[in-house]
Amino acid sequence: MSTSEDQALRFGPQIMARADELAAITEDAPRLTRTYLTAQHREAGERISGWMREAGMSVHWDALGNVIGRYEGAQPDAPIVMTGSHLDTVRNAGRYDGLFGILSPIACVADLHQRGIRLPHAIEVVAFGDEEGVRFGVTLIGSKAMAGAFDPAWLDRSDSQGISLRQALIDFGADPEGLARVDRRGRGIAAFIESHIEQGPVLLQAGLPLGVVTSIAGASRIRCTVTGLAGHAGTVPMGQRRDALTAASDMVLAIEAHCQTHAGLVGTVGQLSVLPGAVNVIAQEVRFSLDVRSGIDAMRYEAVEAIRAQCEAIAAKRSVRLDFEPYFELKAAPCDERLQAQLADAITAQGLPVTHLPSGAGHDAMAFPAVCPMAMLFVRCGNGGISHHPDEILSAQDAELATCVLLGMLERFGLAD
Amino acid sequence: MSTSEDQALRFGPQIMARADELAAITEDAPRLTRTYLTAQHREAGERISGWMREAGMSVHWDALGNVIGRYEGAQPDAPIVMTGSHLDTVRNAGRYDGLFGILSPIACVADLHQRGIRLPHAIEVVAFGDEEGVRFGVTLIGSKAMAGAFDPAWLDRSDSQGISLRQALIDFGADPEGLARVDRRGRGIAAFIESHIEQGPVLLQAGLPLGVVTSIAGASRIRCTVTGLAGHAGTVPMGQRRDALTAASDMVLAIEAHCQTHAGLVGTVGQLSVLPGAVNVIAQEVRFSLDVRSGIDAMRYEAVEAIRAQCEAIAAKRSVRLDFEPYFELKAAPCDERLQAQLADAITAQGLPVTHLPSGAGHDAMAFPAVCPMAMLFVRCGNGGISHHPDEILSAQDAELATCVLLGMLERFGLAD
Repeated sequence: MSTSEDQALRFGPQIMARADELAAITEDAPRLTRTYLTAQHREAGERISGWMREAGMSVHWDALGNVIGRYEGAQPDAPIVMTGSHLDTVRNAGRYDGLFGILSPIACVADLHQRGIRLPHAIEVVAFGDEEGVRFGVTLIGSKAMAGAFDPAWLDRSDSQGISLRQALIDFGADPEGLARVDRRGRGIAAFIESHIEQGPVLLQAGLPLGVVTSIAGASRIRCTVTGLAGHAGTVPMGQRRDALTAASDMVLAIEAHCQTHAGLVGTVGQLSVLPGAVNVIAQEVRFSLDVRSGIDAMRYEAVEAIRAQCEAIAAKRSVRLDFEPYFELKAAPCDERLQAQLADAITAQGLPVTHLPSGAGHDAMAFPAVCPMAMLFVRCGNGGISHHPDEILSAQDAELATCVLLGMLERFGLAD
Repeated sequence: MSTSEDQALRFGPQIMARADELAAITEDAPRLTRTYLTAQHREAGERISGWMREAGMSVHWDALGNVIGRYEGAQPDAPIVMTGSHLDTVRNAGRYDGLFGILSPIACVADLHQRGIRLPHAIEVVAFGDEEGVRFGVTLIGSKAMAGAFDPAWLDRSDSQGISLRQALIDFGADPEGLARVDRRGRGIAAFIESHIEQGPVLLQAGLPLGVVTSIAGASRIRCTVTGLAGHAGTVPMGQRRDALTAASDMVLAIEAHCQTHAGLVGTVGQLSVLPGAVNVIAQEVRFSLDVRSGIDAMRYEAVEAIRAQCEAIAAKRSVRLDFEPYFELKAAPCDERLQAQLADAITAQGLPVTHLPSGAGHDAMAFPAVCPMAMLFVRCGNGGISHHPDEILSAQDAELATCVLLGMLERFGLAD
């Protein structure tokens, strides 16, 4: 994947090559799928450990299978700067999601090491074992454990083969009894900084390689059921119908309109099913999902209530019943203002314009506010912003710029204090 | 089901009692299901034959299992007036759909017979063996055969047990080689008049027991596929989406609006499915069905083209692709104007107001324009207009009125010429 133009790059080509190498460590070649506590987790972690050691880091696997590389600082008591992301993937994944946030800081540390530079603070690079939650249906296992938010009940969850998380940890050589050692709250972490591909089209459309994340969006999920009255498609005049599907369509458009006219919100109806679902029968019942996200929780709460009111008005007007059942909520994780400013300075130092954007997807960083201030650097996702898919792409040039920015920030960390 | 008020009625209570009796002849008690060429078809046909004979008719089973009762006229060469409906049912049916159109004319003939009246024309009452098409997936088998529209290829169709229609006819004692004898085209049928419950809410809402059908609606069915672009529900801003479901919702509402603002049309989206159908993924593809009906074919063609144009405009505006594939068409069967006028006169003679309405559902009568002029009398369907369901109801009073009107029309038939 390297081009002649890449030859001038210090970090990009190696990062791309390493991402390719890791993409070959998969449970279902030629597709890329690597889930928690598998042989592929082990193999990818070992490969990463090797690169960490080459970069001058000491490495250990913690009790939950996270790989942690540590580059010591000049001042033994200075708080640590932590960075990293996840080495697991979704099924049939792209190769940069998560991995880039591990490979980029390893390149930074290797550069410091090569130049013989030791910063005042130690740097820890973490490769989290589970973020996607594919195997056990719980996301962010690694980062939540560091934030003291690992629920011990998760140990009894089973994968599709009936193997419990507890057993899988033991089989992996990890330690289900070691949660307390993984928890890093109050243990001198100064900051967590995560680099990640955007997984969306915002930077691509803006023509910018990098962006500073303002907040990792919170989400509300709601189950909506519209109950109308079935009837014969030929015999019930339009004016006498209580069609659950036209009512639901009206609601889908109201949701879209509300989110389009309120910046900082997204709302999605991704599931919708119709009963009885016959070509010649008016819909009796429609069930649909609603996912509302915002970087600002108050805005999300307001949106959910406004949407509920609009959908209820539609139901009343159309003489159908609406059940609106919120069933899941995740609060937003705002990024630390000072760290955002430092990332912005590091981008400016590369001669690039600074843009800010929220993250609509969840990331390891969102577990960290319980541990320390956190921030995220987004790098442009090519190919229309596709992610969680083999078509996910990242350019070596953008990988280079993001790595230079992270390095700049690590080098300047604490100097502004 | 009889009340003291019913005691003054001549026909209604007996019709209700006979409908109850026939409802007990079922393949899956306590539900009512009676399909073509079964033991239940035989038993119901024999019961009906008995009532026909009591009413002074001669009875025969034709080569396709239709039961035909004939009450001779005074003039042996006068054309015949045919009436009737179907004795088969959908699964888990109501008890009046089809059956009422057999029981009501038997009551008319019984009354003529009791009064010693012989009309100039013979009357034939037909109990069609198959209209619903449940067993072999072809509807209107009985009436289409009378209209010369039975496709011999149907004989090779199989039911869910693998029994062909040909074999089922032989097993029933009917005659798959006898199609030509069933065909009544050019054989002196002056008119076909069908009484039927409305199977919709129009008469009920209008507060009228009876209505004259103007036309049996034609139908167009279209398969629509909307292709957008999948994306992460959190990471793709509203303004950059190509959401197949919001586009399809827009189309569903455009279809509804078009049909609401054009009298004489109904349009229904009864099936809709979303891919990939995940709560956190923007819809990539939506498939939906469209059923458009009108008593006037030109209006239906115009509507389909207008809807196609509107949906294409929505697709263009939203940058999604629309595939609009018509896959089924049934032409409308307009009812004969003169017969409609005669039915209207017979209603007026009962001191009732006359209303006209189209039939959105198909009926045996729609096969008859190839044989003779046809008309239909609708009787009010209770319970919100529910049909094809055990909750289908008809009152003895309405059954009485409909029978008086049919009798009046039979007695006056030809006098107006």
